[in-house]
Amino acid sequence: MKKEEKTERRSGCPINVALEIFGDRWSLLIVRDLMFTDRRTYKEFLDAGEGIATNILTDRLQRLETHGIIAWERDPADGRKITYRLTAKGMDLAPVLVEMVLWGARHEETAAPPALIRKMSKNRKRFISEVRKRWAQTKD
Amino acid sequence: MKKEEKTERRSGCPINVALEIFGDRWSLLIVRDLMFTDRRTYKEFLDAGEGIATNILTDRLQRLETHGIIAWERDPADGRKITYRLTAKGMDLAPVLVEMVLWGARHEETAAPPALIRKMSKNRKRFISEVRKRWAQTKD
Repeated sequence: MKKEEKTERRSGCPINVALEIFGDRWSLLIVRDLMFTDRRTYKEFLDAGEGIATNILTDRLQRLETHGIIAWERDPADGRKITYRLTAKGMDLAPVLVEMVLWGARHEETAAPPALIRKMSKNRKRFISEVRKRWAQTKD
Repeated sequence: MKKEEKTERRSGCPINVALEIFGDRWSLLIVRDLMFTDRRTYKEFLDAGEGIATNILTDRLQRLETHGIIAWERDPADGRKITYRLTAKGMDLAPVLVEMVLWGARHEETAAPPALIRKMSKNRKRFISEVRKRWAQTKD
């Protein structure tokens, strides 16, 4: 995987570049956990519900860190505990995730609460700025 | 792959549902080609520039069709020629792709023309409605 990061990109198309970074079935679930839930640790991502395997989780956390989308720090209260957070670049994925939520909720059967979907759909900008505000408050 | 479609979803989270459909390095490139370029045939997707392999292209076209994101038809002028198009569900991925373009262009080195990015960024809604209008005109 590390080797792959160094190779040339398939093309300079920004959609392709984005897919080379997070175009897989798992990376954006970690971003989702950090953006919309309280999950912050390896163990919590492991238990998120989709059944990610330990080796895949380790790989995706490394990739997301390599690409500057997440960062980690030691818990000041317990030096053995590592917590992850989104960087500003990671937080900038909020509009992508929101549009994915809206598309999924519109076209597939999902467990998304209709009231939340209506709120997101009616005012994406406000929804994203609220998520961003929560993120900014817990950043330090 | 066909078998996999039938299995239960990993979770009902709409982001997860979306990733189970197009969470890979290639599917959204085909959607991109249909949405923003004139590429409509297998051969044209093959030559799109990222170097997709024939077996992967065949698989992704089938998956996208299974999920109702693309459809195909025979060219009336040449019955051996198959052309693909986005369905309404596929066209509804426009906001996801636009946000990916903006994220990629903002945070990575890409070949995206700055003028186009500015236009997209300044008025996403109008940009998407223009893309949608072009799609509607060529639908039949």
